[in-house]
Amino acid sequence: MPNHSTKFKIKDMDITSGSPLVAIINKRDAERLDLHPLDRIKIKKGSKIETVVIDIAESKKSVKPGYIGVFEEVIKSLSLKSSDKVSIILARKPLSLEFIKNKLDGKKLNGKEIDQIVWDIVHNKLSDVELTYFVSACYTNVMDFDETIMLTKSIAKNGTTLNLKKHPIIDKHSIGGVPGNRTTMIIVPIIAAAGLYIPKTSSRSITSPSGTADTMEVLADVSFSIEKMRKIVYKTKGCIVWGGALNLAPADDKIIKVERPLSIDAESQLLASIMAKKLSVGSTHILIDIPAGNDTKVKNITEALKLKRDFEKIGKRLKRNIKVLITNGRQPVGNGIGPALEARDVLWVLKRDPRRPLDLEKKCIMMCSNIFKMVGIEDGYKKADDILDSGKAYQKMVDIIKAQGGKKFIAKDIKIGKYASDILSKNSGKVIDIDNILISRIARICGAPSDKGAGIYLYKHIGDSVKKGEKLFTVYAESKQKLEYAKEDINSSKIVIVK
Amino acid sequence: MPNHSTKFKIKDMDITSGSPLVAIINKRDAERLDLHPLDRIKIKKGSKIETVVIDIAESKKSVKPGYIGVFEEVIKSLSLKSSDKVSIILARKPLSLEFIKNKLDGKKLNGKEIDQIVWDIVHNKLSDVELTYFVSACYTNVMDFDETIMLTKSIAKNGTTLNLKKHPIIDKHSIGGVPGNRTTMIIVPIIAAAGLYIPKTSSRSITSPSGTADTMEVLADVSFSIEKMRKIVYKTKGCIVWGGALNLAPADDKIIKVERPLSIDAESQLLASIMAKKLSVGSTHILIDIPAGNDTKVKNITEALKLKRDFEKIGKRLKRNIKVLITNGRQPVGNGIGPALEARDVLWVLKRDPRRPLDLEKKCIMMCSNIFKMVGIEDGYKKADDILDSGKAYQKMVDIIKAQGGKKFIAKDIKIGKYASDILSKNSGKVIDIDNILISRIARICGAPSDKGAGIYLYKHIGDSVKKGEKLFTVYAESKQKLEYAKEDINSSKIVIVK
Repeated sequence: MPNHSTKFKIKDMDITSGSPLVAIINKRDAERLDLHPLDRIKIKKGSKIETVVIDIAESKKSVKPGYIGVFEEVIKSLSLKSSDKVSIILARKPLSLEFIKNKLDGKKLNGKEIDQIVWDIVHNKLSDVELTYFVSACYTNVMDFDETIMLTKSIAKNGTTLNLKKHPIIDKHSIGGVPGNRTTMIIVPIIAAAGLYIPKTSSRSITSPSGTADTMEVLADVSFSIEKMRKIVYKTKGCIVWGGALNLAPADDKIIKVERPLSIDAESQLLASIMAKKLSVGSTHILIDIPAGNDTKVKNITEALKLKRDFEKIGKRLKRNIKVLITNGRQPVGNGIGPALEARDVLWVLKRDPRRPLDLEKKCIMMCSNIFKMVGIEDGYKKADDILDSGKAYQKMVDIIKAQGGKKFIAKDIKIGKYASDILSKNSGKVIDIDNILISRIARICGAPSDKGAGIYLYKHIGDSVKKGEKLFTVYAESKQKLEYAKEDINSSKIVIVK
Repeated sequence: MPNHSTKFKIKDMDITSGSPLVAIINKRDAERLDLHPLDRIKIKKGSKIETVVIDIAESKKSVKPGYIGVFEEVIKSLSLKSSDKVSIILARKPLSLEFIKNKLDGKKLNGKEIDQIVWDIVHNKLSDVELTYFVSACYTNVMDFDETIMLTKSIAKNGTTLNLKKHPIIDKHSIGGVPGNRTTMIIVPIIAAAGLYIPKTSSRSITSPSGTADTMEVLADVSFSIEKMRKIVYKTKGCIVWGGALNLAPADDKIIKVERPLSIDAESQLLASIMAKKLSVGSTHILIDIPAGNDTKVKNITEALKLKRDFEKIGKRLKRNIKVLITNGRQPVGNGIGPALEARDVLWVLKRDPRRPLDLEKKCIMMCSNIFKMVGIEDGYKKADDILDSGKAYQKMVDIIKAQGGKKFIAKDIKIGKYASDILSKNSGKVIDIDNILISRIARICGAPSDKGAGIYLYKHIGDSVKKGEKLFTVYAESKQKLEYAKEDINSSKIVIVK
């Protein structure tokens, strides 16, 4: 393309891009100007300029020769009207493309280069193809420790921050893959009831039947701005909100988008992704829970120990107090799997209802005692137990739910899917294994997490005795058809293995 | 997303996608159904089904909740009208994603896996992000020889084929990076005049001032269907057509699209890309020209020798007779650079006009003598020289130009850009170097290849004596402004170095 300007008429495409700004020109203009898909041009209207990535329209129906189709963001930013005339000139490629190429070639990135890449990602300067090269480069030429630290800082820096101006600020994180495991919703009220700040952000489900944000949403709102989150935390000391609404780590969100199609899971990015969000909320004391089990994210103790060391190392470098627990990830934690069933478990634990799942309660108390120890509080196990017993944790949860605009505080108010089916054991014996992946799959077929009442309720855990014909679990759905789909898929003897 | 169907109303987006089929749904529906960008769904209307990749509309302006925005290809394939109701269900990921992930993890691909990947690429089953992972995987975990052979075969198999049913079929290929070097347009008429079949496909410029297809286009049409190409070759034995119009290697075209943003150039893909097209036209005897020089594609003799060995090895495995020449790539070949200027050089050589560039003529005769030797014709140098002298090569070129719908056969009919500026030497001495990259850059600023008459005409080559104030080269443009832009950029003493 010549480096001087060419005139085009505007066509409003009536589309928002979300990602990098895109403009569409006809194939004939593209050939004439030697422009190719993913090239960048500057669109100029008066003194306003916007850089966009080119897409090519094959047919005249989309964009005729002489026209340039633009998305809403460009219309707004240049105050354009249909049939306005604009000039276009070839734009330089973003600086970060060279650094991404270097990384792909196996070179190490420095802080300035990582900052530039992250800035370009956050400001939509990179196309999905270019971002994919970055993710792919970091996946094959794994980032070393220094690069990971710089990436973490850069992701945090390029997002919003909470800045509570309090000390200490507690945080916790559980690595995924274990159904149930709703520790956050029990730990946050206990810690906050003890007078400590714990501004917890959680994620929604990606491939599981429910994320903590999905489960909390059964009881209260979870989408808040950072200002609203700050107000809630000043009021109640704790919160359980959805991290995705806060823009804490927008670079990370965009990276995850292109990781999804291939289920890429670069370890450096896992660490950076978790730790950046902790930096953003200002956490000083962070408890990490790594459940290990062959059908969870961390497959075995060796992997878990490596990850533990990495977290401890990164904690030291970022000057955060990090404690890592390796826990049992061989089976679901708690009985309910799916948003409403998990929320009911949580309220039962906080109320110390006889129906509560004791494994979940025990794990939460243990985790709280570790947190207390980190901030110098002795006898933490007893302290957490007392806070639960006294009803203070439950009361704190009620306060948090109210602060987050919720109205449900009682387990029996939670609506469970009205279509249900009991799955019985085909033989007598002991439960020797429960398949996390199949449990998740069935709960999702039932409709979780979008159907809040859908999921599975487990009656047995590993080690329990079972008689032939006894209930192993119940599946719940909000529609009859989904229940039927789930039942077709169930092979009970592979889900809960009794021998 | 639940695995049963959900109903949506159609919105016609008035866009053609070109690549994988895309459908847009509103953010609210995406959250409700747990759908993410780049997920795949099946759209069902009656008994017709089409699989598409999801994109998410952030605003209601693009696509309202309850609507699904679809591109023209989907409208056509499902015979949709606006506000038609369709159902959508979650679709499986293409099989090839698993293989791409394996390659990214450093595993070797087998023939079936490569076939599946190439098939999915050609049939638009992969999004740009997924295709980028494949390119990136092959770039970092370089394909071995077996994989390259399989990729070559697969690319050829998944495109159109010429199938002339003649023997031998001659072909030639020059690796890029050297301005000028329009050997094809001289070799094809010589070889065809000798009675041999040479169905030559060429590319357009990507970053150079002209590709052979761009230069040939000055004299004749170059875009033909494979059927039309076959007719031309049966008539004239030779042709010079644009490969891009023939769909010989559609997988390769799509790969190149995502390679461009990062200027990725995987060697295995270079080999596969060249050889697949040779397989598609049925070439039996192939001459490869590797110009080596530090400002061309192949930087030095070591690289050139490695590439030569790879070509010879791949030739053996594909049972093709391949001969590789390493030539001098230190400076442009011929005097003209830019479509019209190169076309004029070519006609001058074919006419043995006194103004012809002797370096280009000599190189072509040498290459023809090598081709003759490959098919058992002795004394090839003399034979090529005789064919030129007799006017048979020129007459053959006239026949080819006519067969390709062209009307220009005489050098003086070729229009050179009317704005010109002579660049003079600032000192006396000998030309010791000419910078290929700067020459290309200036020719492109002048307007080449889209302005056919734009470019550079060189008066001096390496080794020539120059006096201070003598003309080194002339720059030509079709607009005054472009000539001015070029002149601003010219630093003559760095382009043609006289010492």
